Parts: sequence; structure tokens; C-alpha cells
Amino acid sequence: MTVIDAQTRTGLRQVAHRLADAAREVTLRHFRQPLVAEAKGPAGAGGGRFDPVTVADRESEAAMRAILSRERPGDAILGEEYGETVGETGLTWVLDPVDGTRGFICGTPCWGVLVAVADAEGPLFGIIEQPYIRERFEGGFGVAQVAGPSGTAPLRARQGRRLAEAVLLTTFPEVGTRAEHDAFAQVAGQVTLVRYGLDCYAYALLAAGQIDLVIEAGLHAYDVNAPIAVIRAAGGVVTDWQGGPAHRGGRLLAAGSPELHAEALAILSRCPA
Amino acid sequence: MTVIDAQTRTGLRQVAHRLADAAREVTLRHFRQPLVAEAKGPAGAGGGRFDPVTVADRESEAAMRAILSRERPGDAILGEEYGETVGETGLTWVLDPVDGTRGFICGTPCWGVLVAVADAEGPLFGIIEQPYIRERFEGGFGVAQVAGPSGTAPLRARQGRRLAEAVLLTTFPEVGTRAEHDAFAQVAGQVTLVRYGLDCYAYALLAAGQIDLVIEAGLHAYDVNAPIAVIRAAGGVVTDWQGGPAHRGGRLLAAGSPELHAEALAILSRCPA
Repeated sequence: MTVIDAQTRTGLRQVAHRLADAAREVTLRHFRQPLVAEAKGPAGAGGGRFDPVTVADRESEAAMRAILSRERPGDAILGEEYGETVGETGLTWVLDPVDGTRGFICGTPCWGVLVAVADAEGPLFGIIEQPYIRERFEGGFGVAQVAGPSGTAPLRARQGRRLAEAVLLTTFPEVGTRAEHDAFAQVAGQVTLVRYGLDCYAYALLAAGQIDLVIEAGLHAYDVNAPIAVIRAAGGVVTDWQGGPAHRGGRLLAAGSPELHAEALAILSRCPA
Repeated sequence: MTVIDAQTRTGLRQVAHRLADAAREVTLRHFRQPLVAEAKGPAGAGGGRFDPVTVADRESEAAMRAILSRERPGDAILGEEYGETVGETGLTWVLDPVDGTRGFICGTPCWGVLVAVADAEGPLFGIIEQPYIRERFEGGFGVAQVAGPSGTAPLRARQGRRLAEAVLLTTFPEVGTRAEHDAFAQVAGQVTLVRYGLDCYAYALLAAGQIDLVIEAGLHAYDVNAPIAVIRAAGGVVTDWQGGPAHRGGRLLAAGSPELHAEALAILSRCPA
């Protein structure tokens, strides 16, 4: 793990906020405006679902990269729209300029901008930014807080809920592959409430102690680095469906407490690879 | 239809905004705070789903009723939590103090407060208020606008989209009865994108021209009066699944344009009663 002194941490956190500020401004310029949503990749990519990308995604990442090229030119970058830029410091900025582009093009307030700074072992600090609400969840470097329209509050994942009392969120009812869907459905059948469609906002609500579980599959590294940092800083647990690291993407299980994580993992870990 | 002069309309609109102001304050006092969510009605009610009610629902409606008893004592009231209060003016205030209580107890920003004033033929004016975002959609009495964190903008439902290009929203993937689910699935299979879980915010997005269709079943009058007023004022079309009035609840089809409404209605109208 990279050793980072206090001053560098403060600097990295400031840069992360500057990236989120820039992305907020750019995305709001396009949000709820007429937009051309292009299908991303070949037809049938993304499990046959419509997987759009817009000028907002591209301009938001470009604005963040412009800041990094000035302020952290030696760091690597991994972004959803412009791929990988190599670096030399051991630090990588992991950027999702619009997480939940489908939600974005529907005008919902549940998409977000994801900014993380990571080393080889995973994210060190992350931001989940919701531009329209003017709400920002951050976690790492000793910080775990949300700043939004009702002020600033600490983030604390909810403890003490067993699976039967848990609230579970995921983005799509169909989840991933058939086997992944079936494993998800086994967990879903045991909780008190399941909700859909919140994209990265679901992770923010877990960190804020409002819900108990998020289960997803088919994720990319840029989808998960910032959420992992925020949830861990709030006391939650995030792994893949085998209990291993989740920051490279794929299948993700996030829980408010270790006990609840273990209950859900016991079910999901039986899902064939 | 009740004839209402311009001055009375202005007064009714002001009262509606005062109700929404009061409900915003009360609900935010409880939002994202530890809350006791009680199951509403007997176990298994609401299609076996967990149907919660909280002190926020009750206090929000009580606050609105207190204003009405002072300012519009002759009007009737129909509210989710405290039922019907008879009146003598021919006008009824239709109140849902927290629409989307499940979303509320999960901390989402997609629940809302619904306020409508109606006569015997249906809603005349309605408000969809999202307290956390500080966002208010209103429609009727010659007004169709949203006021929120990005300022004030007119509401215009989107025109010109055919079913194959449409974005469809509903709250639960399971929709209603088996027959209702199957009818919904037939429409869902023909659109470009389906999203879930937004409660009354889906209607607001339709009025704002962001999405094209909302299809729901099993609704109550207090769920639909305000959305109908807002969507109609924005140029959209709302009926039941037979093309008749929807303001008493049950099955609802809302579309941005008459042409799109007709396309979806042709499918839904084959659903057995």
C-alpha cells in the first residue's frame, strides 16, 4: 500500500473536490436539455440493453482530465469514456463522468459523478456527487460525510440489521446473467424490501445508513472505486460475491455491517462463476 | 364543472403552495432520521408487499389539514392517512402527505408530497413536491412549471415519440395483478428503455418532457389527482387502461402525446378487468 503523508492526502482530497465541482458544472449544462443519446458499443452490448452515452459523459470526463493534467500530471487515470492514461506515482484517478447515463437521460436525480483515487490495492478516497441535488458524499483519508441541501452530516452505515429486516437495492431487476439473477433473487426473497433503479445513489444511501444491502453484477472498475471508498469510510463492507476485493468490477456485494454481509455472502457465494 | 373566477383560482393556488410548504418542512424533519416504519393494514395487504406508514406521513397530512381548516373550511378533504372530510363548496383537496413511503424510508430523493384541488370531474390544479431537492412541479389554472435547484422552467410533455422510441417508467417491476403485469410487459417489450422505482417523481419527469410513458395499477385517488393535473397542464394525456378518467385511481396510463397514448392504450385495453 502506498504511504501518503497528511499534506498529500489533503491535496488529493482537494483535487478530487475540484474534479467533482467541474463535473457538476458540465453535467448540469446538459441535464434535462435535449440530448442525443447514442448507443454505446455494438447492438446487443450490455446484455442487449440500451447502453447510451451522451456529450455530457464525454465533456464531464474531459473537464476532469484537464484538471488532472495540470494538478496531478504524474498520476494514472482510468475513465469510462477515454480509457487508461499511464502514470508514474502509483496513484490512479478512477473516473465515471456520468454513472447511470440511462437515469441521466430520463432526468432522474439518482445518477452521479464518481471520482476516486486508488493505489494498486484499491481506492483510498472517493466521491459520489449528485449534481442536480447539489449533494456530495465522500469517504476516505479519515473523512466520511455528506454535504447537500440539508447541510453537512457524517456518514455511518447502519448496523444491527439481519437479512430478514434488510432493505436491498439494485439497479436492474434482471441483474446480470441468469445465474447471477437467480442468486440475487434468493437474497431478495429473504429481505423486507427491494427497490430498483437508483444507480450509484444506492451506494450513497448505504453509506448514509438508509439502506442495508446493494447487490450488483457486470460492473466496471470505474463503477465501483468511489462507492467502495465511501462505504468503507462509513463502516460498511464491500466485496465481490466470493468475499474477495471488488474494486476491479464484476460482481459486488455491499452491506452496512459485517454480520449482514456474511449472511448475504453465504447465499451469493454459491453462484457459479 | 365548477366555475371558478380568476381571483379564487389565485387563492386556491396560493393555499396549495402553503400546504406544500408545510409538508416540506414536516417531512424534512423526519427524512433520513431514525423512524419507526409500521406495516400498514393487515399482513399481506398491498399484494403482500411491505406497505409502511410513518409519523412523517401522519404529521405531514395533519399540518396540511390544519391550514385547510383555517383557510378553506368549506372544502372537502380526501387524504391518505385521515380519510374523507365532507365539504359544501364542491371542491375537494386531495392529499398524499408522503407518496412513496418506501422510497422515503430508504432515503431516496424520489418520493413526494401530492396536493390537488378537484371538483366532481377531477383535478383542477396539482402540485408534486420533492422536499429534499427543494423542487416543486405544478400544473393547472393556466400554470405549468417546475421550480427547483436550477431555477424555474416551464413544463412541456415530450411530443413526437413513437412507442419504439419511448422511455417507460413504473414503480414496481411486478406492477399489479398477473394480468396487469402481463399487459405492462407487452408495452415494456416494445419501448427503448424501462426504469423502475421513482414513485410520483416519474409523473413529474413525464410532465417535464424527460420520459414518455408511466404505467401503473392498483392506485388510489390520492396517488393520481395531483399528477393528472400537472401532466395535463404540460400537454400530456392521462387515462385509465380503457381510455376513461383515471382520477379515482386503479389503473393509470400517462403519455407525453396523444399519439403515443393511443399506441399504448391499444395494448393495455385488452387487459381483462
